[in-house]
Amino acid sequence: VNIGVLGAGNVGGALGGLWAARGHRIRFARRRVAEGVPASVSSGDVAVTDVAAAVEFGDAVLLATPWGVTQEVLRAAGDFGGRLLIDATNPIAPGPSLAVGFSTSGGEEVAGWARGARVVKCFNSLGADGFARPGTGADQASMFYCGDDGAAKSVVRQLGEELGFDMVDCGALSQARYLEPLAMLWITLAMQQGYGRDIAMKLLRR
Amino acid sequence: VNIGVLGAGNVGGALGGLWAARGHRIRFARRRVAEGVPASVSSGDVAVTDVAAAVEFGDAVLLATPWGVTQEVLRAAGDFGGRLLIDATNPIAPGPSLAVGFSTSGGEEVAGWARGARVVKCFNSLGADGFARPGTGADQASMFYCGDDGAAKSVVRQLGEELGFDMVDCGALSQARYLEPLAMLWITLAMQQGYGRDIAMKLLRR
Repeated sequence: VNIGVLGAGNVGGALGGLWAARGHRIRFARRRVAEGVPASVSSGDVAVTDVAAAVEFGDAVLLATPWGVTQEVLRAAGDFGGRLLIDATNPIAPGPSLAVGFSTSGGEEVAGWARGARVVKCFNSLGADGFARPGTGADQASMFYCGDDGAAKSVVRQLGEELGFDMVDCGALSQARYLEPLAMLWITLAMQQGYGRDIAMKLLRR
Repeated sequence: VNIGVLGAGNVGGALGGLWAARGHRIRFARRRVAEGVPASVSSGDVAVTDVAAAVEFGDAVLLATPWGVTQEVLRAAGDFGGRLLIDATNPIAPGPSLAVGFSTSGGEEVAGWARGARVVKCFNSLGADGFARPGTGADQASMFYCGDDGAAKSVVRQLGEELGFDMVDCGALSQARYLEPLAMLWITLAMQQGYGRDIAMKLLRR
């Protein structure tokens, strides 16, 4: 899959690097193209470009921007022309707390900003370090996703399974109202409650 | 521990029955006292009474009411006199969706309504059937709780561990803003997404 990655920070760098190592072609869009490919990328067909070119390149586009610049980046992206947009952002405000929620969600806001995109919320509820440590068997982490387009969700499910995650379909995009609080739970447990950055959620099925 | 249980439905009946079987004394408050002890109770020192008497009896009080009558029941309870109030409710509106969230939570609303209570949010993020199936080892479910009083949280932790759960301290009571969406995630996965009522969340620590 050709994947445009908007944002080359912890999340975009980690996921882009992992997918590149599995044979997907990656184009990172970052503010300063001269910064080059993120240090997390060790192999693969990878380059850095601007936002519009990364979107144009992608069969799928990963959104991995800090919340504060997300709307601006999506404006620069232009029309997505029906492309899959994987929203890995969280609407984080100082505190940390959520900037939006309850009657909307970051995922729904993103869908309103990204013209012509089929948005799937995913990869937002685990710290960036964890993408390389899905675990196996009893230790396998779940990755929760939601969206309104079944075909788009199938692609995301496949991309998550390739990384080793147990993929959990949570329903419509409005379920981001629960997946973003789940991210806040991860953040506060990891950072404030002393559980550390290696924690992950697993959905037990019995 | 003497435990008053406000509400004798699925949640109150299940937890009250399990704690009674472990030697705690239980007083259920239910709308019609003549309905007697819930069918889920198989043994122990258990009786049915009114709300004020159940609170008076309890060293701890479990709040397990449907959201719509919660404020009315807490008004009937009078002053809690510093008692621990374990809030197992969820502010469920039709849909289902949350009736409050983001800038407040059911847990915080309950704390505003329950005069003189030390409120701990717990036992809200798992279906009532699951309280008897904590699982063991790799299959052990986590139970998430939050509150502003350390001593009160220690009692809740102990009561959850006695049931066999991996108890996860999520911090201050305002964290109910994330634990109630977690309940909605359980509800929608179990009921709408086809995962069924036996699912449970586990916090993987690595």
